[in-house]
Amino acid sequence: MPQDFFARHKALLDKAVEAIHSRGYWSAFSEMPSPKAYGETANDDGKRAFENLLNKPFPIDQPGTAGETGSERSPFGIDLGVKYPKPDLDTLLAAVQKAEAQWRNAGPETWSGVSLEILSRLNKRSFEIAYAVMHTSGQAFLMAFQAGGPHAQDRGVEAVAYAWLEMSHIPRTAMWEKPQGKNEPLKMEKRYRIVPRGIGLVIGCCTFPTWNSYPGLFANLATGNAVIVKPHPGAILPLAITVQVAREVLSEAGFDPNVVTLVAHEKGDDVAQKLALRPEIKVIDFTGSPENGVWLERNAHQAQVFTEKAGVNQILIDSTNDFKGMARNIAFSLALYSGQMCTAPQNIYVPKNGIDTPEGHLSFDQVASGIGDAMNKLLGDPARAVEVLGAIQNDGILQRIEQARGLGEVVVDSKPLQHPQFAHACVRTPLILKMDASDPSKFMHEFFGPIAFVIATNDTQHSTTLARQAATKHGAITMSVYSSDQKVLDEVSDVAAEAGVGLSCNLTGGVYVNQSAAYSDFHASGANPAANASLTDTAFVASRFRVAQTRAHV
Amino acid sequence: MPQDFFARHKALLDKAVEAIHSRGYWSAFSEMPSPKAYGETANDDGKRAFENLLNKPFPIDQPGTAGETGSERSPFGIDLGVKYPKPDLDTLLAAVQKAEAQWRNAGPETWSGVSLEILSRLNKRSFEIAYAVMHTSGQAFLMAFQAGGPHAQDRGVEAVAYAWLEMSHIPRTAMWEKPQGKNEPLKMEKRYRIVPRGIGLVIGCCTFPTWNSYPGLFANLATGNAVIVKPHPGAILPLAITVQVAREVLSEAGFDPNVVTLVAHEKGDDVAQKLALRPEIKVIDFTGSPENGVWLERNAHQAQVFTEKAGVNQILIDSTNDFKGMARNIAFSLALYSGQMCTAPQNIYVPKNGIDTPEGHLSFDQVASGIGDAMNKLLGDPARAVEVLGAIQNDGILQRIEQARGLGEVVVDSKPLQHPQFAHACVRTPLILKMDASDPSKFMHEFFGPIAFVIATNDTQHSTTLARQAATKHGAITMSVYSSDQKVLDEVSDVAAEAGVGLSCNLTGGVYVNQSAAYSDFHASGANPAANASLTDTAFVASRFRVAQTRAHV
Repeated sequence: MPQDFFARHKALLDKAVEAIHSRGYWSAFSEMPSPKAYGETANDDGKRAFENLLNKPFPIDQPGTAGETGSERSPFGIDLGVKYPKPDLDTLLAAVQKAEAQWRNAGPETWSGVSLEILSRLNKRSFEIAYAVMHTSGQAFLMAFQAGGPHAQDRGVEAVAYAWLEMSHIPRTAMWEKPQGKNEPLKMEKRYRIVPRGIGLVIGCCTFPTWNSYPGLFANLATGNAVIVKPHPGAILPLAITVQVAREVLSEAGFDPNVVTLVAHEKGDDVAQKLALRPEIKVIDFTGSPENGVWLERNAHQAQVFTEKAGVNQILIDSTNDFKGMARNIAFSLALYSGQMCTAPQNIYVPKNGIDTPEGHLSFDQVASGIGDAMNKLLGDPARAVEVLGAIQNDGILQRIEQARGLGEVVVDSKPLQHPQFAHACVRTPLILKMDASDPSKFMHEFFGPIAFVIATNDTQHSTTLARQAATKHGAITMSVYSSDQKVLDEVSDVAAEAGVGLSCNLTGGVYVNQSAAYSDFHASGANPAANASLTDTAFVASRFRVAQTRAHV
Repeated sequence: MPQDFFARHKALLDKAVEAIHSRGYWSAFSEMPSPKAYGETANDDGKRAFENLLNKPFPIDQPGTAGETGSERSPFGIDLGVKYPKPDLDTLLAAVQKAEAQWRNAGPETWSGVSLEILSRLNKRSFEIAYAVMHTSGQAFLMAFQAGGPHAQDRGVEAVAYAWLEMSHIPRTAMWEKPQGKNEPLKMEKRYRIVPRGIGLVIGCCTFPTWNSYPGLFANLATGNAVIVKPHPGAILPLAITVQVAREVLSEAGFDPNVVTLVAHEKGDDVAQKLALRPEIKVIDFTGSPENGVWLERNAHQAQVFTEKAGVNQILIDSTNDFKGMARNIAFSLALYSGQMCTAPQNIYVPKNGIDTPEGHLSFDQVASGIGDAMNKLLGDPARAVEVLGAIQNDGILQRIEQARGLGEVVVDSKPLQHPQFAHACVRTPLILKMDASDPSKFMHEFFGPIAFVIATNDTQHSTTLARQAATKHGAITMSVYSSDQKVLDEVSDVAAEAGVGLSCNLTGGVYVNQSAAYSDFHASGANPAANASLTDTAFVASRFRVAQTRAHV
C-alpha cells in the first residue's frame, strides 16, 4: 500500500524538512559501516551479495531489451563481468510513458512515501552498494561506503524533502470569494493539481555514481516523474542496484516498475545524446564534463536541464594560526580519493614573499614544502595511504598527471603505489608542483585528478583576483582560505559570494574542503560555470512539476 | 531609509504571503477607479498628468543617452508624441552594473521594502497609468485602469511575496555540530548569503504593458537584481512611468537609480536581441510572439529565460444548465478588449448533433446562433460596446480578421464601430465563424484578436481530443468547459491537467475565462508551449538568486 510507505516515513520526512531549514547537522542514516548500525554480518553479507553479481547478467527485467552490454573494470584491477540489458529506446520509452501515466496521478504523499521507502532499502544494501561503488569509482572502501551509501542516500532524502515542501505549499483546493459591493459575492471553488513534467533522464558519472545521481533521481520521483537512469559506462553497477531496488518498491506499491528504468551502454555509444533529445524526456540531470554539459544545456530544448560540470577549485593562503594543521588538512584534501572529486582543490595561492605563522614568517618555498611534507607523512604507510587515495578511475587521469608534470617545479612527485590487497590496483600519489603566477594559462583550467599547483602570487590581493577570475570564468564548486586576519576573511568571503562559490575558512581539523554535508551545505551554487544548479535548493525541485488548476462557481 | 520601507510594508507583505498560500480572494489595492478609493480629484489629476506627458520628452534622466526615440500612436487615434531617451547600450550597461553592485548587497528586507514602496506609489498613479495603458494598448478605460493599474500591481506584490518567502527559507547562519563518538563534536558556523543573478531584462508587450511585465520586474528587484525594462515600441509610456517611479524610490532609499532603467526603441530595431545576448543579462522575462520567445529560449544561453508566448484557447460545450448565461458569458469573453488577450478563447467545440439544455436539445447551428445573438445584444449599444471592445492595437490584427473571414461560415461578422468620443479610434466587433472539424489545419493555430470559431465535432470525446492536441502542440493558457455531467467535467479536467491548462467550468455569471486573479489563479502553467513559466509560482522566483555559503570552525 503506497499510503503505508508515506505513513512509515512521515516522521523522517518531517525531520528532513526541519533540517533543510535549520541547516544544522542531521543525517537519516548512520555513516559508520559498523556492526552496531548495520548488523553483525552486514559487511560479509554485502560483500557476498556484491560478489554474487559478478560475471553474470544483472538480475533486472525491463521491456525492450535487445541484447546485453557492460564491460566495467574495477580500478582495483578486477573485471566485473556484469552484463546489463541493452535497451531498444523506442520500446523502452513507450513502456516508461505507460508507467508514467499511472505514477503521475498518484500524488505527493505516494511519491514521497515510495521515494523514501526506496532510500531506506538502499540504506539496508549500503555494504553491497559500497563494494559496487568501490569497484567502479576506485574509491577506497570507507569512502565508497559513506559517499556511495548513507551520504548519497541523505542527498536523496534531502531532495525528497525539498520536493515535498514545495508541493505542500500548494493547497489542493481554495475558496475564492470576491465581494461585489451590495450584491452577492462572486464565489468560486478552485482545485490545484500537481502536474509532473514527464520523464526525467539522470546521467551519472564514474566517480560518484550514486551521490551525484540521487538528488536528480529522487527529486524527479518525488514530484511524480518517471526516471530513466543512464549510468556512466565505467560505473553502472551501483546505479543498476539502485534501479533494481526502486523497481522492487514500485511493484510492491502497486505501480508499474517501469517508472524507474536503466539504460546502460558501452563507452563511445551515443545513447545519452539520443535520449537527451527525445521529446518524451522533460528533465535532465547531468554530472560530467563541461563539453557534454554545455551541449545538453544548448540542445535539449524540450527539457529542463540541470548540470554539474567542472571547475577550478582554489585555496588562498594569506596567513595562519596553525601551519601544521593547515598543511595536514590541505594534504588530506589533495590526497582524498586521489583528487578525483569535483570539490577537490587544485590551485593553492601563496604570496611570493611568504606568510605569517605562529612559528614566524615562512617563505613561499617553506609553505610549499610544508604541504609536501604533510603529504609525504600522510602517505608514508602504503597500507594507510591506499585507504585515503583509493585507485585511479581511468587512464585519462594518468595521462593528465604526465601532461601536468612539466608545468612547474615538482614539490612532491606522483608515483605508483603497490596496493597490499589488490595486486593490479592502479594507485598514484598526488603530484604537487610550484610555479609563479606569471602565466595563468598554465593553471587556469581544470586538471581533474591528483594534481595541485602551489602558485606564487604578488600578495593576497593578487591571489583574490586570480581566484575570482578562475571561478567566474572557469567555474568552481569550492574555495578555501587561510588567514588570521578577519578583514582578509571578509574580503575573500565577498569574492566567493560574488563568484558563487562555497567558501571554507581556516580548515585545520577534521573537516575538509572537499566534503559537503547534506541538509546543511549547498553543493555548487549554480552561479558560475561549474554548475547551473545547486544540490539541493528550491530551484532544483520547483520546475520539475507544474500546477494545473480548475475553477468553478459554488 | 530603506529599512523604513520594509517596516512600512511588512504587514502588506505578510498578508500577500498568506494569500499565495490560501489562494482565496485578496487584493492589496482597490480595483475600482472610484473617488472613495483614490480621492475626489484622482481621475482629473491622472488625466491631466497623462496629458502633460504628451508631445514632449519624457522626464527621465539616464546615463548613456544618445538621442531620442518613440512614436507611439493611440489605438483611439491620437499620436502621443512622447520622446524617450535612446540609450547607448555599452554606457547604459556599465552604469547598470555599477548600480547593481550596490543593490545586490542590500539584502532581502531592503529589496522587498523598496519593491513594495514602488508598487504603492504606482498605485497612487493608477489613473495616470490607466490613461497611458488605454492610449497604448487600446484597452477601454475601466479595463486599462484595472488590468494596467491595481491588478498589475497585485501581480507585482505577488512576485515580491514569492521572492520573500523563498529567501526567508534560507537561514542567515546555522550551527553545524557533528558528533564524533567519544571525541569532541566537529563544530562549524555556516553563513548563507543570497546572491542575485545579475541584471534582468524585462521585455514588455503592447497589449498588457504593465500586467505582463510587473511579475518579472518585481521578482527581479525583490531578489536583488537590477532590471532593464524594454517596452514594446507600441506601448512604452506605461512602463516609462513605472521606471520613473522605481528610480524615484531607489534614489530616496539611497541607491543608484540605475538599478531600474528604460530601453525604448522604434519598431524594427534589434535592440531586444542585442540586449538579450549581452553577457551582463542573466535573467530575461518575455511576453510576446512564439517566434521571439523561442528565439530567446534557444539563444540567450547566459540567462534564465521566462517566456509567455501564445496559444490556442478553447471552450468545450457538452451541455449546459443555463444556455443564455453561457452564451452571454462566452460572448463577453470574446468581445472583451476585442479578444486581444492571451487568455481569450478562440476555438469553441460543439458536438455536431447539438447539446442538451434546460430549454431542450439545441442543434449545433442553434448553439452557434445563440452565441452570435448574445454578441449582438452585448454590442447593440455602440457607446456601451466600445467600453467592452476598446480599440484594435495594431494593423496586424485587422489583417488577421480579413484572413480569417474566408475560413468558415459567418455567424457574426466583424464590423467597424464609430467611437462616440474618439473619431479616429480603430474599433472592430468580433468575427465569429462556424465550421466543421474536418480540417484542423484551419483552426489549430492562434488567431490573436477578435476572431472565434464555433467548430462542429463528432461528439464531446472528439472535442476533448482536439482540445488536448491543440494545447499540447500549440500551447494554451485557458480552457473552458460547459457540461451538466460531472463525469464530463472530470474528464476534461484530467485532459486540462495533462496539457497544463487552467480550466474554468460552467462560467455563466460574472467571472470570465480571460480573467486571472493574482494570489489565486496561476496564469499559464509552463507545461505547454504557450509559456515556459507560470505567473507566479516558486519556480518563477527560485532561480533568480543563488546561495553562497561560508563555513568556519567555531
